[in-house]
Amino acid sequence: MSDKVVPGRHLWFFDYHTGGDSGLFLRISRLVHSEQTPIQRIDIFDNPTLGRVFALDGIVMTTDADEFMYHEMLAHVAMFSHRNPRNVLIIGGGDGGTLREVLKHPQVEKVTVCEIDEKVVQAAKQHLSSGQAFNNEKVQVVFENGAEYVRQFKNAFDVIIVDSTDPSTSKGGYLFTQDFYKSCFEALKEDGVMTAETEDPFYDAGWLKMAYKRISSVFPIVKVYHGYVPTYPSGFWSYIFASKNVDPIKDFRVSDAKNMSQQFRYYNEEIHVACFTLPNFLKNILAQEVRK
Amino acid sequence: MSDKVVPGRHLWFFDYHTGGDSGLFLRISRLVHSEQTPIQRIDIFDNPTLGRVFALDGIVMTTDADEFMYHEMLAHVAMFSHRNPRNVLIIGGGDGGTLREVLKHPQVEKVTVCEIDEKVVQAAKQHLSSGQAFNNEKVQVVFENGAEYVRQFKNAFDVIIVDSTDPSTSKGGYLFTQDFYKSCFEALKEDGVMTAETEDPFYDAGWLKMAYKRISSVFPIVKVYHGYVPTYPSGFWSYIFASKNVDPIKDFRVSDAKNMSQQFRYYNEEIHVACFTLPNFLKNILAQEVRK
Repeated sequence: MSDKVVPGRHLWFFDYHTGGDSGLFLRISRLVHSEQTPIQRIDIFDNPTLGRVFALDGIVMTTDADEFMYHEMLAHVAMFSHRNPRNVLIIGGGDGGTLREVLKHPQVEKVTVCEIDEKVVQAAKQHLSSGQAFNNEKVQVVFENGAEYVRQFKNAFDVIIVDSTDPSTSKGGYLFTQDFYKSCFEALKEDGVMTAETEDPFYDAGWLKMAYKRISSVFPIVKVYHGYVPTYPSGFWSYIFASKNVDPIKDFRVSDAKNMSQQFRYYNEEIHVACFTLPNFLKNILAQEVRK
Repeated sequence: MSDKVVPGRHLWFFDYHTGGDSGLFLRISRLVHSEQTPIQRIDIFDNPTLGRVFALDGIVMTTDADEFMYHEMLAHVAMFSHRNPRNVLIIGGGDGGTLREVLKHPQVEKVTVCEIDEKVVQAAKQHLSSGQAFNNEKVQVVFENGAEYVRQFKNAFDVIIVDSTDPSTSKGGYLFTQDFYKSCFEALKEDGVMTAETEDPFYDAGWLKMAYKRISSVFPIVKVYHGYVPTYPSGFWSYIFASKNVDPIKDFRVSDAKNMSQQFRYYNEEIHVACFTLPNFLKNILAQEVRK
């Protein structure tokens, strides 16, 4: 059977950028799973170019073809900046991709994944290759609101990774509040580090600006970095690194990163440094937040 | 009048990625200009988020919102690597954006734009802000096939910038041939430099691989770099720098770039260096070409 696009023969998925005036369209060659959970809508389908696609509330979360770019940048910038990341907390991340990357680090003794929606983890285990990471014995999964869960910990984690969904959705917004960032600060050990995904600075810089301002009011060291994610709006994705005293460049375990580089498809020891270099328009956006 | 998206009330534009299984959709809030020239179809329209959009044969070439990212990276990596860029040739570039960036450099005495389609320059002058660059007295415009035009020159230019359209279109392919790259080599002075756009390495790495292999067979110094362009497929755009003996890092006029940085919205002296850092999957693609 030909796999060419034939008019009138296909299902399509539309992921709208902020404002709704543009977006990404994807052909659905096979619908694998659709479900309305108490929290959100889950859709999993195949696309001939991108492979398996996983979406929440109509927004692409992962595709087989490019999820490595997002998960590697979110996980390894944190993991290689910490001197000995043994105890890791992932907030969100129900697809398992960030977990898979964290588990590549031999120092890791325990990873807690706090995912608000049990159905996401169930679907990931059944339908996504990244979901296989949950079978590792170092992993503990809790199904709770991450903002509430992290509050109970003091001085507990080496690394916290905030792998949230889009903040405009019903639950993602909790993970962009000042209270949440304060709780993360408290839950981290003195030499702990945090990374968080902070959306795209082109169609929708509002979330990045807000996160940058709020995280800066809590953590002394705060740095924005970025990487490509082709199926996210604009392909230009931002992340924030934050810590009490760890610098992601000065304290970077560069030779460890180099030694492990063959396990990564995007991240390497040069990218770890280059990703903190910001284009002028992004520098200007952040400078405005600092001046306010 | 509300500018919200209302079902059934709008015109839409679809830019298909290679293969046709995905792409970018854009709302047309006002259709400004549509024309079938002897060479290609021109469409110019407004989008509420992206501003004025310019498309050739159904493929987005520029939008007000992000054309600076593409044009700055294509122009300034070449211009600041050359010690004294006085005589510049732009092949393609009928929208005027690359020209505008080149003209920011005070050393420039003459810029020749060789655009195959006179109608593109006419439309750009009338409908695009970038088209105003053609009014500068240092500019000469010739309407010819760039691959043929460049053949007549030996040892003539300081900088050649290849600002082609998509190589899959009727004419863009000429600018990806080995003959063309040989002609560019001949047309450059001994200390001359070239940059070329080489498409996206995610949906369509074929053109980058082909260009890299062919340029490497002609020029001794060849380096791939990259930058974000949100409205191009994947947002991840590749470029190639090539020269006879100039190195884009060692010979980089860093203090000049720093001094001019306020004129740029994307490019700066740190980006000039960081943009040559490649993710692993892209390194692997290029290594395969070298081994062949």
